[in-house]
Formats: sequence, C-alpha cells, structure tokens
Amino acid sequence: MPTPEDLAELAASRAQASVTARPTVPALEAMLHTPIPCLDHGFVRVVDYMGDDGAVVQAARVSYGKGTRQVNEDRGLIRYLMRHRHTTPFEMCEIKVHVKLPIFVARQWIRHRTASVNEISARYSVLDREFYLPRPEDLAVQSANNKQGRGEVLEAESAARVLALLRRDATTAYGTYEQLLEDEGLARELARMNLPVSWYTQWYWKIDLHNLLHFLALRIDPHAQYEIRVYGEALAQVARAWVPLCWEAFEDYRIGGAHLSRQMLQVVRGMLEGRVTGFAESGLSKREWDELMALLGRGA
Amino acid sequence: MPTPEDLAELAASRAQASVTARPTVPALEAMLHTPIPCLDHGFVRVVDYMGDDGAVVQAARVSYGKGTRQVNEDRGLIRYLMRHRHTTPFEMCEIKVHVKLPIFVARQWIRHRTASVNEISARYSVLDREFYLPRPEDLAVQSANNKQGRGEVLEAESAARVLALLRRDATTAYGTYEQLLEDEGLARELARMNLPVSWYTQWYWKIDLHNLLHFLALRIDPHAQYEIRVYGEALAQVARAWVPLCWEAFEDYRIGGAHLSRQMLQVVRGMLEGRVTGFAESGLSKREWDELMALLGRGA
Amino acid sequence: MPTPEDLAELAASRAQASVTARPTVPALEAMLHTPIPCLDHGFVRVVDYMGDDGAVVQAARVSYGKGTRQVNEDRGLIRYLMRHRHTTPFEMCEIKVHVKLPIFVARQWIRHRTASVNEISARYSVLDREFYLPRPEDLAVQSANNKQGRGEVLEAESAARVLALLRRDATTAYGTYEQLLEDEGLARELARMNLPVSWYTQWYWKIDLHNLLHFLALRIDPHAQYEIRVYGEALAQVARAWVPLCWEAFEDYRIGGAHLSRQMLQVVRGMLEGRVTGFAESGLSKREWDELMALLGRGA
Amino acid sequence: MPTPEDLAELAASRAQASVTARPTVPALEAMLHTPIPCLDHGFVRVVDYMGDDGAVVQAARVSYGKGTRQVNEDRGLIRYLMRHRHTTPFEMCEIKVHVKLPIFVARQWIRHRTASVNEISARYSVLDREFYLPRPEDLAVQSANNKQGRGEVLEAESAARVLALLRRDATTAYGTYEQLLEDEGLARELARMNLPVSWYTQWYWKIDLHNLLHFLALRIDPHAQYEIRVYGEALAQVARAWVPLCWEAFEDYRIGGAHLSRQMLQVVRGMLEGRVTGFAESGLSKREWDELMALLGRGA
Repeated sequence: MPTPEDLAELAASRAQASVTARPTVPALEAMLHTPIPCLDHGFVRVVDYMGDDGAVVQAARVSYGKGTRQVNEDRGLIRYLMRHRHTTPFEMCEIKVHVKLPIFVARQWIRHRTASVNEISARYSVLDREFYLPRPEDLAVQSANNKQGRGEVLEAESAARVLALLRRDATTAYGTYEQLLEDEGLARELARMNLPVSWYTQWYWKIDLHNLLHFLALRIDPHAQYEIRVYGEALAQVARAWVPLCWEAFEDYRIGGAHLSRQMLQVVRGMLEGRVTGFAESGLSKREWDELMALLGRGA
Repeated sequence: MPTPEDLAELAASRAQASVTARPTVPALEAMLHTPIPCLDHGFVRVVDYMGDDGAVVQAARVSYGKGTRQVNEDRGLIRYLMRHRHTTPFEMCEIKVHVKLPIFVARQWIRHRTASVNEISARYSVLDREFYLPRPEDLAVQSANNKQGRGEVLEAESAARVLALLRRDATTAYGTYEQLLEDEGLARELARMNLPVSWYTQWYWKIDLHNLLHFLALRIDPHAQYEIRVYGEALAQVARAWVPLCWEAFEDYRIGGAHLSRQMLQVVRGMLEGRVTGFAESGLSKREWDELMALLGRGA
Repeated sequence: MPTPEDLAELAASRAQASVTARPTVPALEAMLHTPIPCLDHGFVRVVDYMGDDGAVVQAARVSYGKGTRQVNEDRGLIRYLMRHRHTTPFEMCEIKVHVKLPIFVARQWIRHRTASVNEISARYSVLDREFYLPRPEDLAVQSANNKQGRGEVLEAESAARVLALLRRDATTAYGTYEQLLEDEGLARELARMNLPVSWYTQWYWKIDLHNLLHFLALRIDPHAQYEIRVYGEALAQVARAWVPLCWEAFEDYRIGGAHLSRQMLQVVRGMLEGRVTGFAESGLSKREWDELMALLGRGA
Repeated sequence: MPTPEDLAELAASRAQASVTARPTVPALEAMLHTPIPCLDHGFVRVVDYMGDDGAVVQAARVSYGKGTRQVNEDRGLIRYLMRHRHTTPFEMCEIKVHVKLPIFVARQWIRHRTASVNEISARYSVLDREFYLPRPEDLAVQSANNKQGRGEVLEAESAARVLALLRRDATTAYGTYEQLLEDEGLARELARMNLPVSWYTQWYWKIDLHNLLHFLALRIDPHAQYEIRVYGEALAQVARAWVPLCWEAFEDYRIGGAHLSRQMLQVVRGMLEGRVTGFAESGLSKREWDELMALLGRGA
C-alpha cells in the first residue's frame, strides 16, 4: 500500500506549475493535491479537474443556440438548467479525487456506478494497520423510529466499552493477518479475509459534475450514514470552490428544495384556500402529512 | 436478513406456472429458483430471465435486414456476431440472479458497473452468523512469480493453524457484534463495522447477456481469485443452459481464443516462413514470447 | 427493410404459448406482439418483458430486510420507494419493444443512453418509401414565447401548402434515392444521404423500468415535441398494464408532483402565514413566480 | 446555429493562458481550440482535456501497489495494461471536443453510449445552409461482396450526375425549409423535418480515453463508413499527440493485433507442425480460413 511518503512523492512529481489554454479555476488550483482530512485516517484529495461554470454554459449554448445569449446571464442560465433538470451540460465538467476511506464506506460509495474507479488491491499489496475507530461522540444507539438511523449518543461508559471492543478485535485481526502472511506464507488474497470492514482502502475516483451532484444529493443528506457524510461534505467544499454558480443553484433547487406529490400540492392549495386546516382533511397518509408539515416549517 | 425459510416462501409464492407468449427456455426453466451451491454457505439462484438464442438472432436481423436471413443459419449468424464483436444483439437477453457471497467476493464483483444490484443492508438488518471458511485444499501460499496469485497448497498442519485462526477471529467478531447490538444498543450501521470481509452478504443482480459474458470472460479466467471463479462457473452453467448457441460461440471465440499483438502476428508469420526459430529472433519481450509459446502449445 | 409480412412471420414464429415459472402479467401478455399505431406509419410493439410489480417489492425487501414486510403492504412500499427516489428496485424489471419511428424522433429518443438498441441499417438494407406527414391539425406556427414550442394551429390553406411542399420534397428525395441505387449503382450508405429526417426507421429497444419511467417523465411532458409524445403515450399505456402499482406511484409523485426550490418553499410558507400576498413580496424572479402560481392553481 | 464568428469569439474568451498544477501536455495544448477540418464543412476541435500518459500509470499503481514501480517503466506498464485489457486506468483521462458533422455520421457516432453529448437543437435554432456533398472520388458503387461496403469508384460522368442530383435535392430542401419558416411561420421543430441526413449538425462530445480508444477501434477500421472514418482519423491524430505511450500500445495490441478463435489457434499449431497445409485440413469455414490467411499474410 502506498505510504504517505510515496503519495507525497507522486504528487510532487506531478504538481509542477504549467501553462495551459484550458479553463482554470484558481480557487480549486489552491486545493489541488492537498488532502482534506476525513474521519481518523481518511482523506479526499483533488488530483485533477476539467471545466468550470463556463463549460456548463458553453454546452448549454450550443444546444439552445445563440438566441439564449442575449437573454440570459450565465448565472440565470445555470439556474434555469438546474431548475428544469437539463442535466447534460453538467456532464461537461469532470473531477478526479484520491480518497482514503473505510471499506464499509467504500461499499456504499461504489453503488454510484457512473464513475471511474481504481482501487488498491489487497491481492497485490499488504494492507497497512489502519482501521476506523469512531470518536466517542459519534457512537449512538439504534434509532427507535428510523430503521436505518442512529438515535441518542452513547453514554461515556458505554462508549468506552464499545471502543475497547472495536479496538481489541481490529488489533487481533491485524495480528492474525500478519501471522498468516509471515508465519504461514498464506496468499495475500486469502490472508485479508478476516480483516474487518472498518479497514481503510484507497482509490482514485473520477466523475462528472452532474453525477457528482447526484452523489452529493444522496450523501450529504441527513439520512446518509454519518461516516460517508463526512466525505460528502469534503466533496461539497471542493465543488463550491470549483463551480460556485452551479453549487449555488444546486443548493437552492436540490438541497434546499423539495419534491411535492400531486396530493401534497392539492393539500397546499387547500390550505391556502382555507379548505384544509389539519391532517384529518388532508387525505394524506400520516407519514406524508408529517413530511409536508416539516417542509412548510409547521410543528406537529 | 432473510432466512432460508423466508426465501423459500418468497420463491414459492412467485414460482407458480403461468402461460406466456414470451420466448421460453425449458432447460433454464428447470433451473429457476433452485440455488446452485457456491463455497460453504453461498449460492447462485436464477430468479428471472428474458430472451434466448433467438432473441439475439432477431435483433441482428433487424439491424442487417432480411438479406441475411437466407444466407445464414442462426448458429452461423451468432458465431459471426461473436467473432466480429457485434455486441449489441447480445444485450437483448437479460437475466436476474439471487446471490449469496462473501463481502470480499462482492467487492470484486461490483466492479462490473453495467448491472443492476439490490443488496441487503446491514443498516436495516442484523446479519446472520455466516462467514466463509475455505476448505483446507483451497489454502495456498503466496505465488512466487505472480503478484496476485496463489502457489502451492498449504501443508496439512499449516492449513489447520490457518483455519483455527480464521474461525477464532470470525467467531470473536460475531460475538462482539451481538454484544454491541444487545448490550450497548449500538446502531446497526456502527456495530457491523468490525465484521470481517469473509462475512456473507446477499443481493439480486440483473445483467444483460453481453455484459454477463464479459463478466465471465474475466471471472472464469484462471487469473481470477478462486472464490469468485466458483461463482463464475455457476453462472457459466446457467448461461450454457440458457443460450447454448451463444455459449458455444463464446467458448470458441473468447475463452478458447486469444488476442495476438501486431508483433506476435509477425513472429507467427516468421515461424511459418522459417525465419524465426526462437526467442532471440522474435523481437518480443521474454514475457510476450512465453505467452505466445503457451498459446501455440510449445514448451519452454 | 423487413416488410410487415416479414415481421408478422417473425412474431408468429415466436409467439407460441409456453409454460413458465417466471412472473407473468396477463394484462401485458394480452398486448404482446401487437403493434400500437403511432403517427401515420409508426408503431410500438412489446416483444418481451421481465418482472412485474412484485419484482420491485422483492428487490426492495432484500435491501431493507424482512422487518419491512410486516409494516408495509406492497402498494405502500412501492409508493415509499418512488417518493424517496430509491431507484434501484425499479431496475429489476425490463421491457423490450420494437418501434417504427421517424428519424428526427429517433434522434431525440437515442439521447437516453441507458438502454439497448438494435436499429435497421441503411448501409445493409434499402429503405422503404415511408415518411412522416403530419395531420393538418398537428401543423402549428412557431410559438411566440417558447423558443422550442408550437403556437397556434395553421390555417387550412397554409396547412395545405405546407403538406404539399413536404410531400413533394419527400417524394422527390425517394425518387432520387431509387435513381442513385438503380441507375448509378451507388452504394447504399451513400444513396441514403439525401433522404429527409422525416423518414421512418425501426429498432428494437430494451430498457429497465426505472429508466423507462425517467424517459417517460421527459417524453410525455407537454414540453416534449408532439411527435415523440405520441410514442411516450403508447409506452405509458404499456407501463400501466405491466406494473399498475408502480405506474400509479409514478403518476402521483413524478408526473403530478413538482419540485419546489428553497425560495419557492419559503414563499409558500409566507403565503400560509399571510406575509406574502403577491409577486412583489416573493423575492422570486417573475418566471419562477409564474411557475409557482401555476402549480398552486392560481391565475395571473 | 452559432456562426464561425460566434465560435471563434467563444473560444477566444476561454483560451487565455493560465497557470495550472494539473498534468499538462504541450503537444495537445498546441492543438487546443483549433479546428481539424473533416469532409467539406465539418471539423473536430479539442476544447478541453484532463490527464496524460502519467495519469494512466498513476491509477494502475494505486491498484497494483508500489511493488510494480521498481519493476516496470511507464511504457512497459502501459503496454501490460493494454495487452491484458486492464481498462479502468485508461478511464482516468478525459477529453472534450467540438464536432461539426453530417446527421448520418452523427447517427452512427451516437451509438457509443458512454460519452456525454450536447447537440445543437433544431427546435431552438434555425439551421444553416450546410450539407455534405462527397468529392467525386468518394462516390462508389455498392460492393458486390460486402453488404455494407463500397466497391469501385464511380466513373466521372456518373459521379457528375450523382452530385447534381444530391445538390439539387438538398438545395430544394433548404429552400422549402426557409419557405416553411418564413412564409408559413411553421414551428422550427416541424420545418426541419424535410432536411436530409446529409445536413450538418454540431455537438460537444466528452469521453474518457478507454472509451475513445474503443470508439476508434471501430471507427478507423476499414469496415467503417468512409465519412465517419475521416472523423476517426482526426481523433486518432489528437490521441497520438495527447497520450503517445497509450497510443503506441493501442496500435500494437488493438489495431495491429487480431483475435484468433480456438479453432484458428489450432490451425496455426497444425501449420507449424506441418499437419495442416491447406483449407481442406483446417476444419474452418471458408470465411474464417480466408480471414486467418489474411492475418498471416498468405495470399489465396
């Protein structure tokens, strides 16, 4: 597995300043090659990128012709595209990051298929002794009302017991891994079998802006598991520096917005006209009613 | 996690015989819903399929017009398509399987992005106590000359030690998992963190025939890790029953065939003309020379 | 190009009733192989399918575990998936159609990349004398306020002139095509060059349910060009018969629903609280205000 | 439709030299923004790119670990990847081009689905009077033995008749187009219906290096239609400047190489051992025998 020194060397060898006639984003150049720390041992590091806000506009204008140029400013055009889900112009930007992340996070991440990935292979390399151990404040009980979520944070004593167990098992697992490799000479592809999914892996991940935004819409959502959200937030910070106009539109229309069903729209109409004053008249399921009230900032 | 009883019930409820006007393959119908065992606890189970050899022919004929009909028989047309890598007609067949497999196998498998997957989630469900433990004869030392492969099988005593270690750590890990869930009430999404990658997961996997064949070309190859090859072989058995003409062509042109470089072709010409009699005259790297000799059935 | 007789023969040879243990949908079986007419010479014809509403539920349940089973009925689960854009279970169903359509419609259609296509090739086959000629009531002037749309229907005399011109040029073009092929012996791939984009082509098109619904969300929208909407409506009719629960959820959440931006949601809150009574206080652009008022059923 | 002046203006506004820490390829920088002419009115123009030969090496090294570094030089590693079809490292480079091309070429091109496209829309813009007219030496009769190919070049008089017909019909079609738009006010989306597929369109096309090479393997092949091959050759020229090591490997292993079937390999063995001296003993179909003899440089 590449050591930090290896990576620094690689980065240095490639980070020399060059002159280019390509679109360039100074705010992103300033972040290039520098790891953004995530969790206890992970990071996101921008390795390369292509395009900027202007590339989205340029693509949209070839589609819609020059007529649009007089009417719309760049910002307005980008907002129009985002609002109406014209997604292809956002595919014209591309970014590549180097990520170090626990295997269980990698397994959620890889569900997004429209990206290119090169991951370190435990068949070729011996993995380092690096596993994820949550901070005490990130340990929480199973949520009572959300099948896939966390509830209250563990009390200090419970958290200490949990961490001791996690550390103990991970340490044992790595000891066994070394023993299998060194004492028994077991093939690497077999010896790695008992390492837990808290183990860190690394990959290069390359994706276009449209698919990155879709990834982020899911992964910075409060329903995403905390550990992948940390990476989502790091990538959000990257996107904000890279394509500020696209990011603003994304926040207004995707993150801050909401999709209302046919029935929800009817309820809103009814409320505005005074016909609907509460759940009983809404015709919605209780779950949908609660969701709608949350969107409208109305308490129970 | 669905128990075997759950799955049997699900299958039964859907396995009732119906009449259909769709292309139907009796040999595959006979395999439907029945698990093909893989490794110690895994399986591949065909859940649904669409199309047959005739669907490939039908699609090719719309492309190439009726003129082809008189000339080619179905078998000849399929072989022609396979030989010339006309891949789109093979996309016209689709298959869906239910698979139970260790996480480290799942991680290799999921690299194939052109498929649809629904995997069991350890955020929603408590995983069962099921992990992969190799048979002694599948334990081998690291290969000396192949960075990603296995060499000699372990001696009996060494194998016993390895298995004892693997079983011990896996058992401990599951004990901790239960303790974290039950004693500490830890959220499922956190408690699963110390389970090893030998743990079994399950998914539905749906893919078209073209992409299935590409998957198999890589995964029944001797360079693939043994554990995923077992699943590859199970799927190969399915494909042979499902689309026998496509499978035969695939074996002749992809599995049994080989790609020769420009330089390799020149060496073969030179050998036929008597100009090249050994490595020294070939101009190939030693590695490519050895690969070519292996293809031509010539020893060192 | 396959004649109608060719196709009927092909269909007949494959339409024999068989017994299957696969999920089967009687309402869709009744439509199999029968063309649904579209425009003046086109059609959509279901050739094969895989899965049903139950396949979506089955995939969701492997993901979310058996816990969900007691709580949700199938319909509720499908609506939940649609509401929260859990898209992968909808990928578990697949459909294949044979379509005959004008080239300019095919060019819009093919933008949807997540499908498999085998199209008739004018390099291999001589195309038939079949081109699209709109009905007089489908001829309209350029919209004054919508850059990509139609406005008022043409007056009868104007429509007659337009149709005469379209027919004249198309007839001339086909005459030239025949002349180039027969008198000059010109290669088919060159001779087809002057045929207009109103010409009919044919393809097999295979797509999963998730991507079909995405296609339909765009193509049955009033902003889609009328000619592709006709095909969208035919496919909508197919989907309704095939997966009635998914279709109902799709209509409620995607077609009948709407996405509100962060700012639009704030305006709705302001209206409910009496703070916002008109455009001036909304802070929206005029365009967004009008869109919101339309969604809430309020006139100018 | 953007005029050449519009495009020049757009390009100029974006072509200012900047300093970047990204990998930069001087030979490709020298080609940036400058159209490479194709056919009579078309072009390929590189608009942006990401990555270089080193990016492929870098991705491969994260996968295969540092061990590979000592052993392989960059060139050797790239050749190894190409030979063994390890395709993902080649996905780490991306390129974006602006292309102007006839509609019938665009229809072949768009079959490659793993790319991003923004095309000019004839619903939004009025198309210019630009259509493809072959040079006399590119007009050929239908091939007698190749259903999709061209045979002998037309004689001068025949070529002149063909060109006169093509020009006449295209001119008439554009006259009608203008008449429909201006005299009848017909909607643009309808008026374009009678324009032939020789008409020029434009798009931005963005693709990764792996998929670009796959595209080129098909489109610079002698079986591809001449008109798309012209664009393939222009892109090949771009790729050679951009990633010279990848391109060399691609030429040696993909373009100059060949895939031999199981049976063909057996025949080669038999020839080397003197057991097979002609077609009769080969067991191949005549077609495959001829293909093999061509690969081995042996005449009929």
